[in-house]
Amino acid sequence: MALIVQKFGGSSVADAARVMNVARIVTDTYKAGNDVVVVVSAQGDTTDDLIEKAHEINANPSKREMDQLLAAGEQMSISLLAMAIEKLGFPVRSLLGWQAGFNTNSVYGAARIKNIRTNRLEAEIAKHNIVIVAGFQGINRYNDLTTLGRGGSDTSAVAIAAVLHADKCQIFTDVEGVYTADPRKVENAQKLDEITYDEMLQLATLGAQVLNNRSVEMAKKYSVELEVLSSLNPVPGTIVKEKIKMEKMLIRGVTKDTDVAVISIVGLSDNPGVAFKVFSKLAQKKINVDIILQSVGRDGTKDLSFTVSRENGPLAIAQLEEMSIIEGKKITCKTDAAKVSIVGAGMESHPGTASTMFEALYAQNINIQMISTSEIKISVIIDEKEADRAVSAVHDAFIPNE
Amino acid sequence: MALIVQKFGGSSVADAARVMNVARIVTDTYKAGNDVVVVVSAQGDTTDDLIEKAHEINANPSKREMDQLLAAGEQMSISLLAMAIEKLGFPVRSLLGWQAGFNTNSVYGAARIKNIRTNRLEAEIAKHNIVIVAGFQGINRYNDLTTLGRGGSDTSAVAIAAVLHADKCQIFTDVEGVYTADPRKVENAQKLDEITYDEMLQLATLGAQVLNNRSVEMAKKYSVELEVLSSLNPVPGTIVKEKIKMEKMLIRGVTKDTDVAVISIVGLSDNPGVAFKVFSKLAQKKINVDIILQSVGRDGTKDLSFTVSRENGPLAIAQLEEMSIIEGKKITCKTDAAKVSIVGAGMESHPGTASTMFEALYAQNINIQMISTSEIKISVIIDEKEADRAVSAVHDAFIPNE
Repeated sequence: MALIVQKFGGSSVADAARVMNVARIVTDTYKAGNDVVVVVSAQGDTTDDLIEKAHEINANPSKREMDQLLAAGEQMSISLLAMAIEKLGFPVRSLLGWQAGFNTNSVYGAARIKNIRTNRLEAEIAKHNIVIVAGFQGINRYNDLTTLGRGGSDTSAVAIAAVLHADKCQIFTDVEGVYTADPRKVENAQKLDEITYDEMLQLATLGAQVLNNRSVEMAKKYSVELEVLSSLNPVPGTIVKEKIKMEKMLIRGVTKDTDVAVISIVGLSDNPGVAFKVFSKLAQKKINVDIILQSVGRDGTKDLSFTVSRENGPLAIAQLEEMSIIEGKKITCKTDAAKVSIVGAGMESHPGTASTMFEALYAQNINIQMISTSEIKISVIIDEKEADRAVSAVHDAFIPNE
Repeated sequence: MALIVQKFGGSSVADAARVMNVARIVTDTYKAGNDVVVVVSAQGDTTDDLIEKAHEINANPSKREMDQLLAAGEQMSISLLAMAIEKLGFPVRSLLGWQAGFNTNSVYGAARIKNIRTNRLEAEIAKHNIVIVAGFQGINRYNDLTTLGRGGSDTSAVAIAAVLHADKCQIFTDVEGVYTADPRKVENAQKLDEITYDEMLQLATLGAQVLNNRSVEMAKKYSVELEVLSSLNPVPGTIVKEKIKMEKMLIRGVTKDTDVAVISIVGLSDNPGVAFKVFSKLAQKKINVDIILQSVGRDGTKDLSFTVSRENGPLAIAQLEEMSIIEGKKITCKTDAAKVSIVGAGMESHPGTASTMFEALYAQNINIQMISTSEIKISVIIDEKEADRAVSAVHDAFIPNE
């Protein structure tokens, strides 16, 4: 007998039929002799609908009241799922974030879990109840509701698995697992049986939206074994854990991220501290910079290019224009770029990986604008309109067509 | 400076425009120098919609999970109203039932308030925040959400007014106050300036759906002055309190209740204990009996007639048919009856009241089937199809046409 945490996203419980489907998955797991704790997101578009209702009334409401509003979304989904499980004849209790003991800090809209008081959870499990927990939410020290921000339900699930020392944390989604590339775009994309936390983190950061990054970080920190699998198709998914068996594949996946703006400053004076000043100015506004390229120019100048999210592009430029060292320099912001990346722990010991990637792009006549590498990742910036072709070409160069 | 509790029902906050309207009423009261605590119901049809969603999944869900689900309704309305008040630039905090300290017993779906821990409410008022409280809900000793049942938000408002010793509790509805009869049916119906708790209780019981009975009982018990008024039309409403000034009107209102089934048993043996046995049998199934008429029959028999709600009619008959003393007796259930009543504390000292009422009905050739009287009320059972005509006739006989 094991303790299994199962997490279902909003699309998995979008309507009555899907709620019943989830109830069957949960009760099948329970019938097999397991204790089951289920974490659920709000149904379908509920959260977006609530945000829209709020904005009809106030375009800029306080984050406290927004959290009070949004937390109602999971309240509805957990009670409906509990009713579905009751209908199948199993003992069940739904718990709101605060009832399940989720204590967070007070950053409304993006709260961090401080601790989970597990007494209620443990009492319900001891009574052999299936426990349904509202993901995404908790309370702060003032007894006010908070939400954990984007992907918060994944984090809730991993946190419960960690504090209860669950045997496994299953994340149910609408895909069957983690793929070497987006299967809707790349015909030859293959589902991975296993992947390491670090590889998963890289994939998540690079735009593969299967798992929320904070949840993977937390799973790594507390050694929670994750499984990503489909709520609609009952086949084994992808296991995420610390160490995995040797694989024939050099890389684990190819990703595309189009949320990229490339900012370039031409003709900066070639003095020490210029890069420091530029990036600390951006950090003041919490603008994350991803890839940085600095080239030596002529006549004692240098050029600086870097990428930020598209949303942050105008803000970054406004920040730069306030700086005296930028005065009179040409600044451009290019928003038709995309980042294509390969990820895989195996590439550390294979020096040829980068050249294989670049060769595949060259064969497609795709121009590389910027390059960034880490131990387990290589990213290139290219034209957005060539991105899908680039992903396919790079994928086929690395992943054996089975 | 006074402390005013204001309660708004679901239709008063049904959409964004109405929420803004309520926000203006609340902030006007606050601007006038008052502390304001607002109690809100769920928006419009939210509660019914949630019940429907639940029943799509499970026709008979547990009441615990139903309360968990329904409590989300007020959670949404309080946060949206708080955002509307923020938009107008006033300090505000929304509080869920449990955050506002509402402790109840564990009768899910019809919980009773045990106490209100006022520390949070008082702290927010001390900070000069407008406080928005979710009506209809609380928590029990297990930290599970409960709801107070039909009209529960009225009860929440009166309870807060009682524990905080508020100067007034204003109940905003879609009518301008309490009328001598239904103004949509009786042309000459008049709004009352004042009415006593007891009269209001009689009117509520008799089908005037302005105020929930439990809330009036609680207001009477704790001497909370109520005002019933319109959220759409800013004119003075009706004050409900213990003693009111002498009025020219003998009666306070005429009501019609069509939720009446008349059950008759003919030829019961005329022995002691027969009535006791019949009504204790009905009480076993919690069937409320209203008017009872027992007539002496012939040959040592008697006839028994009584009224129940139409919903309870078939259940009452099923109960009776199980009884040996009923065997072979004729039982009828008549569902085309209505109850017309007059209410007024003044009638106690006016012996002619009943005859004035009966004369008015006689003049319309309306036959009276049953009669029931109390100190401040006279009810008659008549044919349903004559009920509206009866109300008008009785109203005109008592209420001066202004």
